[in-house]
Amino acid sequence: LNHQIASQPTTIFTVMSALAAQHGAINLGQGFPDTEGPAHLTETAAAALHDGRNQYAPLTGLPELREAVARSNARFYGLDVDPATEVVVTSGATEALAVSLAALLNPGDEVVVIEPAYDTYLPVIRLLGAIPKLVRLTPPEWSVPRDALAAAFGPKTKAILLNSPMNPTGKVFTSEELGFVAGLLQQHDAYAICDEVYEHLTFGVPHVPLMTLPGMRDRCLRIGSAGKSFSLTGWKVGYVTAPARLAAVVAKAHQNLVFATAPNLQRAVAVGLDQDTAYFTTLAQDMTLRRDILAAGLREIGFGVLPCDGTYFLTADIRTLGSVVRNGEDDQAWCRRMTAEAGVALIPVSAFYDPSGGEAPGYLVRFAFCKQPLVLEQALTRFRDRV
Amino acid sequence: LNHQIASQPTTIFTVMSALAAQHGAINLGQGFPDTEGPAHLTETAAAALHDGRNQYAPLTGLPELREAVARSNARFYGLDVDPATEVVVTSGATEALAVSLAALLNPGDEVVVIEPAYDTYLPVIRLLGAIPKLVRLTPPEWSVPRDALAAAFGPKTKAILLNSPMNPTGKVFTSEELGFVAGLLQQHDAYAICDEVYEHLTFGVPHVPLMTLPGMRDRCLRIGSAGKSFSLTGWKVGYVTAPARLAAVVAKAHQNLVFATAPNLQRAVAVGLDQDTAYFTTLAQDMTLRRDILAAGLREIGFGVLPCDGTYFLTADIRTLGSVVRNGEDDQAWCRRMTAEAGVALIPVSAFYDPSGGEAPGYLVRFAFCKQPLVLEQALTRFRDRV
Ligand SMILES: CSCCC(=O)C(=O)O
Ligand SMILES: CSCCC(=O)C(=O)O
Repeated sequence: LNHQIASQPTTIFTVMSALAAQHGAINLGQGFPDTEGPAHLTETAAAALHDGRNQYAPLTGLPELREAVARSNARFYGLDVDPATEVVVTSGATEALAVSLAALLNPGDEVVVIEPAYDTYLPVIRLLGAIPKLVRLTPPEWSVPRDALAAAFGPKTKAILLNSPMNPTGKVFTSEELGFVAGLLQQHDAYAICDEVYEHLTFGVPHVPLMTLPGMRDRCLRIGSAGKSFSLTGWKVGYVTAPARLAAVVAKAHQNLVFATAPNLQRAVAVGLDQDTAYFTTLAQDMTLRRDILAAGLREIGFGVLPCDGTYFLTADIRTLGSVVRNGEDDQAWCRRMTAEAGVALIPVSAFYDPSGGEAPGYLVRFAFCKQPLVLEQALTRFRDRV
Repeated sequence: LNHQIASQPTTIFTVMSALAAQHGAINLGQGFPDTEGPAHLTETAAAALHDGRNQYAPLTGLPELREAVARSNARFYGLDVDPATEVVVTSGATEALAVSLAALLNPGDEVVVIEPAYDTYLPVIRLLGAIPKLVRLTPPEWSVPRDALAAAFGPKTKAILLNSPMNPTGKVFTSEELGFVAGLLQQHDAYAICDEVYEHLTFGVPHVPLMTLPGMRDRCLRIGSAGKSFSLTGWKVGYVTAPARLAAVVAKAHQNLVFATAPNLQRAVAVGLDQDTAYFTTLAQDMTLRRDILAAGLREIGFGVLPCDGTYFLTADIRTLGSVVRNGEDDQAWCRRMTAEAGVALIPVSAFYDPSGGEAPGYLVRFAFCKQPLVLEQALTRFRDRV
């Protein structure tokens, strides 16, 4: 069997969701909202099942969705995107990442990956025979170590994989940091795969796509997620925006790995992207409120809460908690114990580090706050009695 | 960019569907029905959008669908399948193929592939750094050349990719042929990826999954397709049935490449699989009727119609047609001309051959007959005037 895949653990998100179910715990682990997306989108998706378009969608997506993706790029970022040649619809952002990597990488190519890293990045890069070059951000600031980042680039660098707003750190890269990355890409003639699934989930800071920086329009593959933008993670509809020359190759990778995505869901996502700006503002405001409730509660309990400017996720240092000190626990052990004893599931941040890259910080945990305020309060109450 | 992917042509199915649209041609190219699947399935899928399960489905699929897949394996083939550990739901059979190959193959492994071959097989195998060993069936019988097949196996063989009922040939492998394959797999300790998406579309002959043969239960990954079984190709729901040890690795490949599939579609497919046997019998009978209409009409016009025992597809020899002889056309040229001049799109069979494998038969074309009888009649009328 494939060594690389067979040796990989089951994703921490599935492991912790299963553990949460087993213990009847509140699930602040896997990042999905506990409320539904906009009712008019589920209604659109349902209605679309009834009008005779249930056969294969076009390979790169329905024209109406590709056009909506292009309009959304224009509206939010001033990007001029050709819907016919520069957008590829995928079965979720995970597929978008896989086909973008497959389109770019030849065996032996190097890809700069920033740690902590989402857990499909390294396996897909390695499956393609390419080589990840890891650069670690350091908590609590998660600032970019410029020298280390520059040193990770070299003659074999094909691309950087950049996740902003960033999971699990909640970091939103600044224009200055992005400018530094852009300089490296130009210097090394490399591409960027921009995982921007949380593009509409920033809290008082702007999201700047790397693609909008000077010279970057032709070097970036920008990935968006309907699941994250419309609180419908189960639909698994994603989209890649890229210059036509790259999008054409992404489309061929998609042709081989999945081929197409359900037309009724695509049509509803098109409607979602065309919603008033108020929808997106409200989404971010709602999520800010949730972050604030959780951050304040955790701080009060004694967690060392880290900054969070975007995403569904808040990270916190657990070294200040009495029981952690007494038990000498690491993040993994503590998360498992909390699921069982406090009835709250969460994610150890060390799961976002490659074991081959040396010891990861073992004292940080990630909370998903894309949950109802009452659920967050309830989780806080459970922690209060237990930590 | 990735050499292997960038150099690949856009799939012939997309090319010919686009050409059909451009010329307003009847599309007997890409294999999708021109009628909808059962209304109660689209209704189930629509209703399921409204009851609050629009977040991530479990990685290996909803329990209700995995259980229905297991029941279907028992009902149709007497296979005893554990829904918890031996079924992985995928975003269509194309993804099922990709993740099955990714789970099995290490770079340098060899895979026996039978030509004519579906057009994602070779690119995915090569993307994984594995090596296809091609074995050609010869028209008009498409019988298995036993010596050549045996010779394709060797010490590096990891698997065979077997498509029965077979696209584009309409061939359904006999128990005897499967027995020969089974012997080779045991002799070489190899696996089989069984693309059985047309399992319910055979015409008077039984479909025998290789997995049901003695010694094969632990060597086979059996792929099914809701799109093909329920005439809902756009939904892109597929499933892999495999021994737990293999299914676990397939699940990890799926975790990295796509992760999950829309819950509402999964729930409707579960209902589809549990339909009375009459549904499946009627589906096959309807398709038999369509095959017969097309075969008789083409024969009358002068095509050299080949046998067809299953799938959506009929192949025919065009060498007997006057205009082909006069123009000295190959299958590709003739298909393009027919799309424009006769207003009927179809697929050149040479598109199912690897260019590196020597000259392919250039005189066979594929007709999709999963269309309404009146549409088939209309296509025949158009041909009558033009060939
Ligand atoms: C695809 S399951 C994981 C969801 C997610 O993005 C996360 O929890 O980090
Ligand atoms: C995925 S598009 C092709 C559909 C099909 O199976 C065929 O036409 O052969």
